[in-house]
Amino acid sequence: MSQANHQDQTSIFYLISDAVGSLVNNTFNSALVQFPTAKYDVQRYPFVQHIDALAPILERAAQNQAHIIASFSQPEMNQYAQDFCQDHQLFYYGVLQPVIDVMSKDFNMAPTGKPGSKHRLDDEYYKRIEALEFAVLNDDGQHPSRFEEADIVLLGISRTSKTPLSMYLANSGYKVANLPLVPEARVPDTIYQIDRRKIIGLTNDVNVLNKFRRERMIAYGLGDQTRYANDNRIQEELDYAHKIYNELQCPIINVADRSIEETATLILMFLNLENKPM
Amino acid sequence: MSQANHQDQTSIFYLISDAVGSLVNNTFNSALVQFPTAKYDVQRYPFVQHIDALAPILERAAQNQAHIIASFSQPEMNQYAQDFCQDHQLFYYGVLQPVIDVMSKDFNMAPTGKPGSKHRLDDEYYKRIEALEFAVLNDDGQHPSRFEEADIVLLGISRTSKTPLSMYLANSGYKVANLPLVPEARVPDTIYQIDRRKIIGLTNDVNVLNKFRRERMIAYGLGDQTRYANDNRIQEELDYAHKIYNELQCPIINVADRSIEETATLILMFLNLENKPM
Repeated sequence: MSQANHQDQTSIFYLISDAVGSLVNNTFNSALVQFPTAKYDVQRYPFVQHIDALAPILERAAQNQAHIIASFSQPEMNQYAQDFCQDHQLFYYGVLQPVIDVMSKDFNMAPTGKPGSKHRLDDEYYKRIEALEFAVLNDDGQHPSRFEEADIVLLGISRTSKTPLSMYLANSGYKVANLPLVPEARVPDTIYQIDRRKIIGLTNDVNVLNKFRRERMIAYGLGDQTRYANDNRIQEELDYAHKIYNELQCPIINVADRSIEETATLILMFLNLENKPM
Repeated sequence: MSQANHQDQTSIFYLISDAVGSLVNNTFNSALVQFPTAKYDVQRYPFVQHIDALAPILERAAQNQAHIIASFSQPEMNQYAQDFCQDHQLFYYGVLQPVIDVMSKDFNMAPTGKPGSKHRLDDEYYKRIEALEFAVLNDDGQHPSRFEEADIVLLGISRTSKTPLSMYLANSGYKVANLPLVPEARVPDTIYQIDRRKIIGLTNDVNVLNKFRRERMIAYGLGDQTRYANDNRIQEELDYAHKIYNELQCPIINVADRSIEETATLILMFLNLENKPM
């Protein structure tokens, strides 16, 4: 009977964290991907740092028969929530605790108990801000003279995700410049002078590019049959880009069917940067 | 004896995922915050989607006595890794499995078994690309006429994290514009014409701003005693900003001592957007 109830009513998830909640959100969303048609309700409670604040949220969860996914840096908070949920027969998942436990034993140290992201200010924070500012300034090939400063230089024709990739990588602390390739425009000489190991060539499928560009033209009110959206023109641009990639002997990544995260991970693997995140 | 060994040698963590690995990275990093002085080694294995690829990684982990944190969307992969680690007495944490299990039972559905981020292409993907392009184009008050299109408009004097916040929020799909406030420059009229509920005023502590600016001046080779880095000047700019914030009746967030993630979460809470992420 309780089984039948479960299926009839909408499932409710409470995501509770003592910091911003990125880990509980990430866990919840990653699992949810597996159930694309599911109906559910979700409530988020970030910055819950004391049992006084936690207790009323748990009371509400019990009234709503909510499932709880939580991330606490203080073992006492985790224990309190776990005990409460056991008493009230609620699902409880303290995402962080098993890893904190094994680290504590292995490092032979007590956890500091300080919530999440606070410590990440200082060096790492400044490095990220600097990287994001660099990426914004060096979007769209604005300053080829600064390619040398970049950790990563992305090349690609229009609609190969240069900007979102630059910003995503910059958000992890890498200084990224990108350069659009257009057959009619000369490639700046600096691209041949810098360390070629940091250059990545981006490409995409003709049909994806065509769809992208048609939509952009329609959004600009230009109709969808312009030269920009023409398959032959796209092929000409791609041929030109691949000629440059050949000259530079750089790795080529096709962004079709890849999310920004996937392409970014591939880029870091190509550049051997994947084990040196901030 | 094995206990003593554990403390003597550097701990090794293997982070294994069938997608880009953001969840295992996030879990590992969140726990690591609790042990700021710990020494460790970490190896990352993204895109491990078949047991053929998983088996040799686990063999290596066994040789290195590594701890394993993994995220698999296929229960079989998780089970295989869990069994292997149990047989070889390795720590194993399949982050995703408990949530997939409760959802599967609750939704009365089988998980699709498709790895992570693939499904996130399409609408969400385009929305994010559009948001990032909007944020780059509308960084630094470049197009006040487009404030109306924005989901969020950030105001602030120099060094209040306008650019990184804009990019971080854009990466979650929000269209963000930012406008620098300078006492000598007139605020564009559009800021008084748009829906004020989407405006956020950013501020910072005088001493933090002074430190930031001194460093920037030194980086520019200008010495650190310029007018830009002067406390009185900073106070004058802050007073000016707060006058504008008062006129607009917008929420004010002090970014001092807050990470980008924390400030971004606060912004979404102020704007009542926190339960509507992509």
